[in-house]
Amino acid sequence: MECTIRDLIARALQEDLGPGDVTTEATIPAESRSTAAVLAKQELVLAGLDVCREVFHYLDPGVKFDPFAKDGDRIIAGTEIARLAGNTGALLAGERVALNLLQHMSGIATLTARTVEKVKGSRARVLDTRKTLPGLRQLEKYAVRVGGGSNHRFGLYDGVLIKDNHIRAAGSITGAIEGARKRAHHLLKIEVETKNLEEVHEALASKADIIMLDNMPIDMMREAVRLIAGRALVEASGNVTLETIRAIAETGVDFVSLGNLTHSAPAADISMKIRS
Amino acid sequence: MECTIRDLIARALQEDLGPGDVTTEATIPAESRSTAAVLAKQELVLAGLDVCREVFHYLDPGVKFDPFAKDGDRIIAGTEIARLAGNTGALLAGERVALNLLQHMSGIATLTARTVEKVKGSRARVLDTRKTLPGLRQLEKYAVRVGGGSNHRFGLYDGVLIKDNHIRAAGSITGAIEGARKRAHHLLKIEVETKNLEEVHEALASKADIIMLDNMPIDMMREAVRLIAGRALVEASGNVTLETIRAIAETGVDFVSLGNLTHSAPAADISMKIRS
Amino acid sequence: MECTIRDLIARALQEDLGPGDVTTEATIPAESRSTAAVLAKQELVLAGLDVCREVFHYLDPGVKFDPFAKDGDRIIAGTEIARLAGNTGALLAGERVALNLLQHMSGIATLTARTVEKVKGSRARVLDTRKTLPGLRQLEKYAVRVGGGSNHRFGLYDGVLIKDNHIRAAGSITGAIEGARKRAHHLLKIEVETKNLEEVHEALASKADIIMLDNMPIDMMREAVRLIAGRALVEASGNVTLETIRAIAETGVDFVSLGNLTHSAPAADISMKIRS
Amino acid sequence: MECTIRDLIARALQEDLGPGDVTTEATIPAESRSTAAVLAKQELVLAGLDVCREVFHYLDPGVKFDPFAKDGDRIIAGTEIARLAGNTGALLAGERVALNLLQHMSGIATLTARTVEKVKGSRARVLDTRKTLPGLRQLEKYAVRVGGGSNHRFGLYDGVLIKDNHIRAAGSITGAIEGARKRAHHLLKIEVETKNLEEVHEALASKADIIMLDNMPIDMMREAVRLIAGRALVEASGNVTLETIRAIAETGVDFVSLGNLTHSAPAADISMKIRS
Amino acid sequence: MECTIRDLIARALQEDLGPGDVTTEATIPAESRSTAAVLAKQELVLAGLDVCREVFHYLDPGVKFDPFAKDGDRIIAGTEIARLAGNTGALLAGERVALNLLQHMSGIATLTARTVEKVKGSRARVLDTRKTLPGLRQLEKYAVRVGGGSNHRFGLYDGVLIKDNHIRAAGSITGAIEGARKRAHHLLKIEVETKNLEEVHEALASKADIIMLDNMPIDMMREAVRLIAGRALVEASGNVTLETIRAIAETGVDFVSLGNLTHSAPAADISMKIRS
Amino acid sequence: MECTIRDLIARALQEDLGPGDVTTEATIPAESRSTAAVLAKQELVLAGLDVCREVFHYLDPGVKFDPFAKDGDRIIAGTEIARLAGNTGALLAGERVALNLLQHMSGIATLTARTVEKVKGSRARVLDTRKTLPGLRQLEKYAVRVGGGSNHRFGLYDGVLIKDNHIRAAGSITGAIEGARKRAHHLLKIEVETKNLEEVHEALASKADIIMLDNMPIDMMREAVRLIAGRALVEASGNVTLETIRAIAETGVDFVSLGNLTHSAPAADISMKIRS
Repeated sequence: MECTIRDLIARALQEDLGPGDVTTEATIPAESRSTAAVLAKQELVLAGLDVCREVFHYLDPGVKFDPFAKDGDRIIAGTEIARLAGNTGALLAGERVALNLLQHMSGIATLTARTVEKVKGSRARVLDTRKTLPGLRQLEKYAVRVGGGSNHRFGLYDGVLIKDNHIRAAGSITGAIEGARKRAHHLLKIEVETKNLEEVHEALASKADIIMLDNMPIDMMREAVRLIAGRALVEASGNVTLETIRAIAETGVDFVSLGNLTHSAPAADISMKIRS
Repeated sequence: MECTIRDLIARALQEDLGPGDVTTEATIPAESRSTAAVLAKQELVLAGLDVCREVFHYLDPGVKFDPFAKDGDRIIAGTEIARLAGNTGALLAGERVALNLLQHMSGIATLTARTVEKVKGSRARVLDTRKTLPGLRQLEKYAVRVGGGSNHRFGLYDGVLIKDNHIRAAGSITGAIEGARKRAHHLLKIEVETKNLEEVHEALASKADIIMLDNMPIDMMREAVRLIAGRALVEASGNVTLETIRAIAETGVDFVSLGNLTHSAPAADISMKIRS
Repeated sequence: MECTIRDLIARALQEDLGPGDVTTEATIPAESRSTAAVLAKQELVLAGLDVCREVFHYLDPGVKFDPFAKDGDRIIAGTEIARLAGNTGALLAGERVALNLLQHMSGIATLTARTVEKVKGSRARVLDTRKTLPGLRQLEKYAVRVGGGSNHRFGLYDGVLIKDNHIRAAGSITGAIEGARKRAHHLLKIEVETKNLEEVHEALASKADIIMLDNMPIDMMREAVRLIAGRALVEASGNVTLETIRAIAETGVDFVSLGNLTHSAPAADISMKIRS
Repeated sequence: MECTIRDLIARALQEDLGPGDVTTEATIPAESRSTAAVLAKQELVLAGLDVCREVFHYLDPGVKFDPFAKDGDRIIAGTEIARLAGNTGALLAGERVALNLLQHMSGIATLTARTVEKVKGSRARVLDTRKTLPGLRQLEKYAVRVGGGSNHRFGLYDGVLIKDNHIRAAGSITGAIEGARKRAHHLLKIEVETKNLEEVHEALASKADIIMLDNMPIDMMREAVRLIAGRALVEASGNVTLETIRAIAETGVDFVSLGNLTHSAPAADISMKIRS
Repeated sequence: MECTIRDLIARALQEDLGPGDVTTEATIPAESRSTAAVLAKQELVLAGLDVCREVFHYLDPGVKFDPFAKDGDRIIAGTEIARLAGNTGALLAGERVALNLLQHMSGIATLTARTVEKVKGSRARVLDTRKTLPGLRQLEKYAVRVGGGSNHRFGLYDGVLIKDNHIRAAGSITGAIEGARKRAHHLLKIEVETKNLEEVHEALASKADIIMLDNMPIDMMREAVRLIAGRALVEASGNVTLETIRAIAETGVDFVSLGNLTHSAPAADISMKIRS
Repeated sequence: MECTIRDLIARALQEDLGPGDVTTEATIPAESRSTAAVLAKQELVLAGLDVCREVFHYLDPGVKFDPFAKDGDRIIAGTEIARLAGNTGALLAGERVALNLLQHMSGIATLTARTVEKVKGSRARVLDTRKTLPGLRQLEKYAVRVGGGSNHRFGLYDGVLIKDNHIRAAGSITGAIEGARKRAHHLLKIEVETKNLEEVHEALASKADIIMLDNMPIDMMREAVRLIAGRALVEASGNVTLETIRAIAETGVDFVSLGNLTHSAPAADISMKIRS
């Protein structure tokens, strides 16, 4: 929600500015005005332009922000992404926080787009995970969507995903699924993690809605997909990389999920330049 | 400060748990107790163990947390980093947030250590930047120190760093430095960014405490260091990578700063395994 | 999560106490100690005992709280629910906030239990709605469970429920369901609201997971259940009362949902009495 | 104060929306615009229209909100209370929170108006109590005023009300009143609770400003009023209902206070309908 | 309330410590332990010892805090007020915030005690005002009580005080008092400000509970007290100083209120000394 | 930063207004509008006008605020500082909070200006300290600047100041300075406290950037300045008063710091008067 993002921006600015930008206060007249350009310094898929603008507007609603691109656009190195005009102190005070967010989100969108590209033509959709940074999940998952990926559940509360720990505690896959069906609300599907074909069999028998194939060899995955035969959705997960994802997608799974989209995407190189 | 970290943890758990962990509530008895192991799945430099423990203690002060390593240790793949014992629901509810932080911080420490290794034998110290993620700066800068790096200023408020924008607004390097000396408080040094030798000359003449060489070719850097001759500290900055840092360090600069330590370190691979 | 409840208690106490309990401060010595009894003054199903205890512990962790019943117990008028011992000022400062919560939650549990009783023997489960009071949803939904009811989705984020407004915007039931299937994450089922049998047909054809029968006459509901024949779950909704719920349940629906469980349950009559 | 209400709205929306309205996001175009009508579905006394509008403006300041009635109006079933126009997503995201507040506040105003009607012609004013829901006291007490009732003290800090517990701790009514007069600030009156005529005598002798008759039989109340004879204000309290309040009012008391105005008022039936 | 104080301490420490105490971190081992003495460097009336202790306990619950005096004690220069033992870093991190609060509160208590001393033997009680610093009202008003003064209303919400602005808006003293009697709740007395004897007459006729004599000459005050003759309480206010208060008190007023107790009390000189 | 000030104002208004201004609500029509004048009642140096305006705008953005002076102006008694026009209730609700801040800040600016006046002609600059009130440091330090003083470090995080406690823990001045140089970031200078000439010698030898002369007799200060001879900046500190500061300044120190600028400045006398 809007207000969460605003709180995030407030905290980020507080973190960076504290009691004030001593350099700018000491060298630039309070009434000075400038224009500035936000520039891509590498090829990237843009994500986070709204957040970027909000950072400056939080500091000074009078800053003019003119975008020349929009989220989801593939941008080449050297492109001017947006132009700003306003109080110089506000531009300099917001610069780092705005770029930190824009670079991080565009980094995720760019990596996601590369990943989605790899599975083109297969039925598999690329999913993110809950492996996100504290406070940034909403922005990171948005960036995944911008890059062409799909979101997995947002948190522990909007989806049932039974893992080995739950199975062990419940005694069996069947027991865990039955418990979940009885206690979780009726709008949630039930996904269960499996490590081998025997577990896939049991998950099917218990009428799991989605079956996760966790860290399985490619052959076993293919066999699992054959076995399931459309009676449940299938998600492949575990140590998926840009190198391995194509082969996984070709086993016929419905989804492939990767933590690295969010936890290991390098920042996209973007800078801000005061023009005048 | 402690309470900031606690707030971060509270927000992260709120983000992940929302109104509750529906899977665990539906499949695991509320009174169930387990032990769990935190495991390194790659070689890494550990950072964030205290934060990791705090996540579980926030959820349940009764969780027992026994570490087998400490921050700064170099860990090989397969090492058990810590063992936990306590309420199963609390262990599962905290798992993702704890690992997200531990993996991110260890990722930064690991990349920093690799970077520091590269400049061994030179006089140069490796510095981070303000290119950090919102709300995580304190943890990220801590991880840099754990990895053997040093911190640059924390924010815009605890160091004067005059960049080209300030110079342009002030009319000259000399003007900007004089303004800063007059208006910033007397415990802050003054660093100024330079792009060529002419600017280095002016910075020296204006008695800058630290001179940043921004994006200079190696030869120009070497010449700048010779010119400065100990009359100011020297920081090299701009597009530094693992490949280029050695050559930069050998020019004789005092510091090399890199944004990628914090904004592009891939997460270290760490998982949690319920044992019983 | 625990911390949300604690925040709620903090706000409630702040609201009631402000800068202090002037009467108690003026008439009772600061070191005075008392015991007190929490008493049911009507027959009720108890809910909220943990929250009640937390209110007193928030004010003074030294207050002793001995419960003689537990959430879910059916209590007759005159029963002593719990005994407290501790600082008199803390007992009096917490009394009203603790009782306000306990009376509200027990009121909901009591009304829910009466409602569940009405449908005994049918297959229908009694569901709550999102018609809750700001900040109290988690406690109110807990009280519904304590009273034997089940929860519907917690908010707008953990379940897809397509209502007439969505259908109109999407052009058709089919269009809305297809959009939802494509864009909502794969762990969420899709429920759709229908007003007549024609819409039920379309919902079935579009493979809705759950079909809501909104404000239908009993005969139409019965026909809809026959039509659906187990191919989707069925929820009856709209103006359900204690008088009409039995007939609705007997149509064979899987769920009946009622807003009045939470928004119109009268407070249960519970008081606190200082004993000595 | 305004900001407290705004915080309440923020929390309520956060509670209901969490990371987003998945149904609307999946089925309705982000730029879609609609008009909607807020409709009374029963006869009621309206309260909360400003809060209702604020909910939508919090989400989107661009939503147009045209009221056709105002707080305090008696509305018949079928009346259009207000018309909204704006972004469809904002209208649907705010609907439930806005209605939950409006229904609750109008429910209280409606019950209060019925109660006030009962005592018409007597000197008695109808008062609320501190039996309110956490975080909602200001809105609930406002709704009582809208319904024609008066407010009792807001919390423990803006009025001295000596109850039996304080009397016991102070040793006597006289002792408690003297303590309060000495220690509470000079702008606060002193009210004391009495259970029988003997206590009324003592309260009078100690010059209590207000005497509460707690749970007395009608005859004893009448005698108490005669005894007090205008030397103190008189408040009747304890198990007052719509059935008993007339007789109580006719004893000549100045005030009758009832907890059920706030803790047990059923929600008024109000809905929102998207028109186009 | 406790939690408000704790929030104040948290904010104060955040303000002083920000991302950390760089000096202590750079010069003192993390595990170092010390003892320290809190010392009075002037004669003073002590106030704030609990808050002082809370500052250190907020940082480290393990700090031992042994007080040698208590709030309200008159202390001579050189007295050791308390001894602390614990982690050196925590002692140094808390020192300034703890002393800032203790010095401010003791300064107020000391000035209040001097002021109360001046009116000894008269019937007048010394009152504070709402002229306090943001966020510190509760602590400042507490310090006034510790110094022997009494509190006026806490804020705008717990007392009716009709000033000239209200009178002008209401048309007359009589009109304002009648409005207040009708609309403010029945536990609040009504005080009215008067500037001359004519206004005193009108206030009496309107049965004001308390009459404030604002900035009147001594003779007029004496005449006003005679006129009122116990039919209302009397408060003198406006430019009261240590020099003028005795004469004011001797006119027979019940209360004298002074803003300078809180807004102009010089800090008491107190320091902390690390012993070992 | 702006938002911190806004939070401070929000808390201050919440503290003063709580659930509402009962007097104004009871006596002044909600739609009443007034003009008001803010008046200086003594000679003063104005500080805080922006904050004053923000208080009213927080309550009602429609209040018109016309200043007739600006921060830093020396104002004589009787001057109209600003004129306000707007909703009467908003003017009265904001009055006390706005004046409390304006009086406090102007009090500090006025005392600072008097102090700066004393050292005119010397090279010494007047510095504040960290002896400020919780939550008000930014405003208080701003007021010092307005009065012509300079700020010392803002908190423990933006300057290294080695005091006797650090020296004792580090073993020697030399040890402490070396530790600080190694561990504090490179943009921070190092100041060290000295009590006698021997320590001054050691500080010089260790190349301290700034040497503080703590509580030294005038003669010793003069000797220290001679000794240091420009090789470090020199700050005099400890029990500096309006009476002693001239002599201290004339010893040739660069800075004199005083806690009383912030912790003991009496409030400037400023009032608000409703005109019509």
